[in-house]
Amino acid sequence: MTQERWQQLVQWPLLGAATIFLVDYAWKVLADVQGEPGLILTFVLEAAWSVFLLDYLMNLVLAPQHWLWFRTHLFDLLVVVLPVLRSLRLLRLVTALSVFPRSPGTAVRSRVGIYVTTATVLLVFLASLAVLDAERRAPGANITSFGNALWWTFVTIATVGYGDFTPVTIEGRLIAVALMLGGIALVGVVTATLASWIVDRVAELTRDQGAGK
Amino acid sequence: MTQERWQQLVQWPLLGAATIFLVDYAWKVLADVQGEPGLILTFVLEAAWSVFLLDYLMNLVLAPQHWLWFRTHLFDLLVVVLPVLRSLRLLRLVTALSVFPRSPGTAVRSRVGIYVTTATVLLVFLASLAVLDAERRAPGANITSFGNALWWTFVTIATVGYGDFTPVTIEGRLIAVALMLGGIALVGVVTATLASWIVDRVAELTRDQGAGK
Amino acid sequence: MTQERWQQLVQWPLLGAATIFLVDYAWKVLADVQGEPGLILTFVLEAAWSVFLLDYLMNLVLAPQHWLWFRTHLFDLLVVVLPVLRSLRLLRLVTALSVFPRSPGTAVRSRVGIYVTTATVLLVFLASLAVLDAERRAPGANITSFGNALWWTFVTIATVGYGDFTPVTIEGRLIAVALMLGGIALVGVVTATLASWIVDRVAELTRDQGAGK
Amino acid sequence: MTQERWQQLVQWPLLGAATIFLVDYAWKVLADVQGEPGLILTFVLEAAWSVFLLDYLMNLVLAPQHWLWFRTHLFDLLVVVLPVLRSLRLLRLVTALSVFPRSPGTAVRSRVGIYVTTATVLLVFLASLAVLDAERRAPGANITSFGNALWWTFVTIATVGYGDFTPVTIEGRLIAVALMLGGIALVGVVTATLASWIVDRVAELTRDQGAGK
Repeated sequence: MTQERWQQLVQWPLLGAATIFLVDYAWKVLADVQGEPGLILTFVLEAAWSVFLLDYLMNLVLAPQHWLWFRTHLFDLLVVVLPVLRSLRLLRLVTALSVFPRSPGTAVRSRVGIYVTTATVLLVFLASLAVLDAERRAPGANITSFGNALWWTFVTIATVGYGDFTPVTIEGRLIAVALMLGGIALVGVVTATLASWIVDRVAELTRDQGAGK
Repeated sequence: MTQERWQQLVQWPLLGAATIFLVDYAWKVLADVQGEPGLILTFVLEAAWSVFLLDYLMNLVLAPQHWLWFRTHLFDLLVVVLPVLRSLRLLRLVTALSVFPRSPGTAVRSRVGIYVTTATVLLVFLASLAVLDAERRAPGANITSFGNALWWTFVTIATVGYGDFTPVTIEGRLIAVALMLGGIALVGVVTATLASWIVDRVAELTRDQGAGK
Repeated sequence: MTQERWQQLVQWPLLGAATIFLVDYAWKVLADVQGEPGLILTFVLEAAWSVFLLDYLMNLVLAPQHWLWFRTHLFDLLVVVLPVLRSLRLLRLVTALSVFPRSPGTAVRSRVGIYVTTATVLLVFLASLAVLDAERRAPGANITSFGNALWWTFVTIATVGYGDFTPVTIEGRLIAVALMLGGIALVGVVTATLASWIVDRVAELTRDQGAGK
Repeated sequence: MTQERWQQLVQWPLLGAATIFLVDYAWKVLADVQGEPGLILTFVLEAAWSVFLLDYLMNLVLAPQHWLWFRTHLFDLLVVVLPVLRSLRLLRLVTALSVFPRSPGTAVRSRVGIYVTTATVLLVFLASLAVLDAERRAPGANITSFGNALWWTFVTIATVGYGDFTPVTIEGRLIAVALMLGGIALVGVVTATLASWIVDRVAELTRDQGAGK
């Protein structure tokens, strides 16, 4: 079997696994499911995760040059380790709502805008679930409700950092570091998109003035 | 009636409604008007808001392609939901103070600068009113005077976030999230404008050196 | 007398007034001078300030078109209101250490870098003095030594905002807002300069590859 | 001896000194080595540092124009004063993992990305060690374990600044200021790299459309 054949085959199963992962995780954390039902939800979560792991390993095996594929797909490795990122596959559904490309600049910027907005919403939602899951029962923790977890996530990703809620567990702090990186990337993408827009506007105006002479 | 005819017709009424909205809201919150006078001010506020709603619906109905207009005017929908944004209509008055466009780059950057400054001032003022309105009587809240609300707004929009004042109500936190988004956009616009200026300066110097040879 | 003649005439007196302003203010605040010696230092401070005011008024009077000069020199008005900015005149001494312009891009970026570094150092120093002066004797204030004032200034301009020290007076908070604006501008200038450098590096590499073929 | 000959000669000794510096410092701080073993580690640390100092002085002496070399190598002076930066020499090992340069833009951005990632990791690790070393025994300090020091470093470099941990010593605060500058540079580099990528993507799409016509 070729790598391309495999990728075509698993496209929909991966999207399904991502959706199951998201719904299952949200359910488990929000309803604070414990005991036997909790074990079942954890099992489904791990099953969905194993689909991503299988896909990564199959891609590595089927690639013509294993080492080259490994080096050029470090992000895919990260996705296996942090299944939160895999939910970004759901972005494909969003981009189906294709945009109105008046110019190449507008097309690129619209696409970037849609990706960033959706990725930010997913990241905020999943990080809120994860931090609540990590902190909820920790001694001395103050992030103990989903409302506060969501509020803390926004305060962190915007790099505001009031400090009214802070994680105390190692898991919670790792999520915080991921959110901070996300926040830096978010500021970067917003700024870069605006810079590209201003540069285009200036170029357009220069062209119009040249034509008007 | 065509859509253009409608837009010409409502231009001034909308500007009036935005002004009434701003003054009425500031009065209600700053003077902490309650009882019957408070109800009257709330009624006027809602009347001003209904003008924006009517304008949105009329535009949707009069547009030749309803769905296309809806998709390309998502910002207008946001404006109806968050009337704070409608005050940005007042920007039109500011841009009447037209600038001195020495070059297309300067013209675009001056225009961006004026818009951003005015929008930031309006956003800071309205968010301070809104957060004071939301937090004032909440148990455990510390944003209870306009001075502190204004200070908190600046600390939040600059993404500094000391944490000496923090919102505790859901309304207050939604305003905070809007301010954070505003802050990210503000940093982005300032940086993008500066980048455009530096790129232009370098290009200018390169041209001068080429001509001097 | 023409405006140019006036500007030539006052160039050195203004630089002197800026230096006196800086030294006098630092002395007054750091040594916490009070009583009669404090009054003398305040008098000298106001004398130095009046030189800036006189220069502004003379420029306005001598300008061929008063209103045009006023509109295009809003920054100079700000400088009169906030004499802190006038210390930026000292930047002229720094730029005498002229740089090594290998290319127009490097020349512009070096110049921007030197200006930004010097302006940031001056802003941090003067804001620390000003906030200490404003907060020192305020009830409930915690910025009561120059060391803490300097630490708070860095935390604010970098938009970190720990919240271990926060201003409580209106003057202190106005200085904080000025620092936040300075911080946003600082991030903007650093980013824009780096962006210009990366764009130049890419263009250079593209050119080299083209020539190598 | 020429300057080039010297630089070739010391290339590997400097890399060795940087590695010894890093390992020795981490060992001393993490194991909290005191008494006689602590003195030995401090001695080795200072020996490694003196290699950097010697290299700087030799370069200054061997340079054909001393003053020109001094002026154009201010960063090297900083490296001698702050040996933390010298660890950045280890970056050379990383860049040996050379990348896959599809286009000049991708090549520059990959290189910038690798440098920034490695420099950030080194900076975070060394700053955590340094702040722990400075604060550990200070009265009233709360950064007293490596876990908390690492968490504080991330919170500071991302300019989030919760304020749950803050330095109280002058050394700790100097490290904080260095981290803040690092954070501003980090945001700047990420944004600039993204901006360069978006500009390239737009240019590429414009070219493709032009060719398609």
